[in-house]
Amino acid sequence: MTTTSAEDLLGLAAELDAHAPLAGTRDRFVLPEGIVYLDGNSLGALPKAVPPAVADVVEHQWGQRLIRSWNEVDWWGAQTRVGDAVGRLVGAAPGQVVVTDSTSVNLFKAIVGAARLRPGRSVLLTDPDSFPTDLFMAQAAARMAGLEVRLATPAESAGAIRALGPSLAVAAYSQVDYRTGEKWDLAALTEAAHGVGALACWDLCHSAGAMVVDLDASGADLAVGCGYKYLNGGPGAPAYLYVAARHLGDFDQPLTGWQGHARPFAMETTYEPAPGITRARVGTPPLLSLLGLEAALTAYDGVTAEQLRAQSLSLTGTFLEALGALGVDLPPATPRQEERRGSQVSLRHPEAFAVVQALIARGVIGDFREPDIVRLGFAPLYVTHVDAVTAATALRDVLAGRKHERDEFRSRGAVT
Amino acid sequence: MTTTSAEDLLGLAAELDAHAPLAGTRDRFVLPEGIVYLDGNSLGALPKAVPPAVADVVEHQWGQRLIRSWNEVDWWGAQTRVGDAVGRLVGAAPGQVVVTDSTSVNLFKAIVGAARLRPGRSVLLTDPDSFPTDLFMAQAAARMAGLEVRLATPAESAGAIRALGPSLAVAAYSQVDYRTGEKWDLAALTEAAHGVGALACWDLCHSAGAMVVDLDASGADLAVGCGYKYLNGGPGAPAYLYVAARHLGDFDQPLTGWQGHARPFAMETTYEPAPGITRARVGTPPLLSLLGLEAALTAYDGVTAEQLRAQSLSLTGTFLEALGALGVDLPPATPRQEERRGSQVSLRHPEAFAVVQALIARGVIGDFREPDIVRLGFAPLYVTHVDAVTAATALRDVLAGRKHERDEFRSRGAVT
Repeated sequence: MTTTSAEDLLGLAAELDAHAPLAGTRDRFVLPEGIVYLDGNSLGALPKAVPPAVADVVEHQWGQRLIRSWNEVDWWGAQTRVGDAVGRLVGAAPGQVVVTDSTSVNLFKAIVGAARLRPGRSVLLTDPDSFPTDLFMAQAAARMAGLEVRLATPAESAGAIRALGPSLAVAAYSQVDYRTGEKWDLAALTEAAHGVGALACWDLCHSAGAMVVDLDASGADLAVGCGYKYLNGGPGAPAYLYVAARHLGDFDQPLTGWQGHARPFAMETTYEPAPGITRARVGTPPLLSLLGLEAALTAYDGVTAEQLRAQSLSLTGTFLEALGALGVDLPPATPRQEERRGSQVSLRHPEAFAVVQALIARGVIGDFREPDIVRLGFAPLYVTHVDAVTAATALRDVLAGRKHERDEFRSRGAVT
Repeated sequence: MTTTSAEDLLGLAAELDAHAPLAGTRDRFVLPEGIVYLDGNSLGALPKAVPPAVADVVEHQWGQRLIRSWNEVDWWGAQTRVGDAVGRLVGAAPGQVVVTDSTSVNLFKAIVGAARLRPGRSVLLTDPDSFPTDLFMAQAAARMAGLEVRLATPAESAGAIRALGPSLAVAAYSQVDYRTGEKWDLAALTEAAHGVGALACWDLCHSAGAMVVDLDASGADLAVGCGYKYLNGGPGAPAYLYVAARHLGDFDQPLTGWQGHARPFAMETTYEPAPGITRARVGTPPLLSLLGLEAALTAYDGVTAEQLRAQSLSLTGTFLEALGALGVDLPPATPRQEERRGSQVSLRHPEAFAVVQALIARGVIGDFREPDIVRLGFAPLYVTHVDAVTAATALRDVLAGRKHERDEFRSRGAVT
């Protein structure tokens, strides 16, 4: 295998960075010195807009204005206002997204709500390789809503949906697999579900903010996602729930907290859902975290989903090419075809945990996922092509070091 | 009616403040100039410990250390660590309280969990005068858990519990009525529920942090409460859930998110609850808000629940006495007997909304509750006796002004 020098690759990467359409957005983030951060798909980096915004919420809105801020700065409208800002990133027209609760709680609301929109249908179809909370909440929702959970991978889903036919209530899938980074066809799977009269519910945790997510145009029915990965809302930032406008009038969500009521301050004793997506609100939202997310989303100002996708593919492509050029020969779990690739590259290694630790020791932060995955995320707003090549070089060195250690160990073993 | 001058009353109040055992804790808060803040039972004031703590979470823990903070500063353990800090204020030994989600979501978990602890029992008993979300979530939980909701006020509850007997699964009540400020007997109602083999679930939103709440000693089974009223955790701070240790092993909560799993990072496909209260966690918590609450709770350092209760009764007592001395003759909705009084005074007035607005215009912030309640909360950590007298004086002036306006209006009406 011919290899290229790391210096040459870094030079080419610097060229790409200089001409990338999103090059300027990195300046919107605080990034620690000397770190290549490839874990923005687990916790996004800190946008510069956040610290002053959160300080204002704490010191002025809360500290000085106290209870008056509910009206003065419209804390009351924050969940739907920030929802619309998220909507812009996931192809949702205003009035269909609310920021509230965690992804897990929103999944419960979405799946039970879907079952109630499709009474008489008994099956929830989902992916056995889902992120665990998706499976657990699917089981929890199914248990309470009287559904049966059936499993089929996205690749098997079209056949499974046809076979289930009119018994299928809802198909719940992730657009991008959290582990392999494989991107699935949201529009096609949605269409297959609609073909048998069922609904499609999407988890966007690993796609929103890094690619084109076209909920309205794809006809998706429901979707959820978190605020703290590519959306950079900070640790545990509240999650969001999308309900397509055509379902909102009948959306009967199971967690009927007072903030979802039509007249919350009338203090009525029976529940009447608010019109529109407001009915998906539950309790009082954590405003420091929610308004931190609102400030964070300004890092996307002026950026289109198409630009994000182009930058993301350029970054993951550069990384994959650099691995090849540097002679790093690890089997990728992420598809090489662009249309099937999310915004991460996952590589398999039998000692993946140790490899990730060694990368971190060299300043390249990614993460390990069971059982054998080195997972590297490429957040298009702030990761650079130079970062991608630096990470590939570090990985080459880590693997060479591990090989050297193994050889040392074997040769010492032979002596004693 | 004999009246005393406001000056005399203020002098006496200043004396009380100078000798109050909790006088020093007001310095732990930021309070805006010129404001008497009697709405800490809706949104607590800002503790001075919070701004630097939140700035550290945002700028250092998130911004510089990024994903590493989950382990380095134990973000992972925050929900149970802060839970134990709340536990100290509600008479709960460590390991029984978790801070997570909203009060509404925790009520859902508690009531469904209670139903599953008492299979074969069909009734949920609750208060028709509950805060709306308590009623709505009771209805939501009952609908999904197959329970029937029956209503009885706390005063009627002992008879209702006896009549329901073995059909009662759980009695869900608030320790203090959010509207009238009446304090109910947590231990007696709990004992009545236990008398028929049922469980007692308590909403502590309007009691925790302002009085003695003795969950363990009273034998309470489950409890919930918010973090943003007397606990001062900031707008929408996460709520908490208490499950008595004896129930934890069998507590089968309905929202089985990944953070409640026994091994969250093993990425297993079937749910196995973590031991202990950790199983009541659901999704990733909003850490800016959660760690803000943790810092806020340090305002309670060195303060006992008995001191809080003594100060609270002294403040509400001073306010009620000042009203009498100033000749303000509004019917209180709050009981005069100390053992039945929460940490607020609610007064009835046919134009209560306008009265509250006029008080706010004079710098005394309380709130209006439907249909005719002027509600004034006395947070014992930072409200002073001088505040109490100032508020009573302002109320006297507002009512006199309104009477004057009415007389003016009538006399002008007579002229035209």
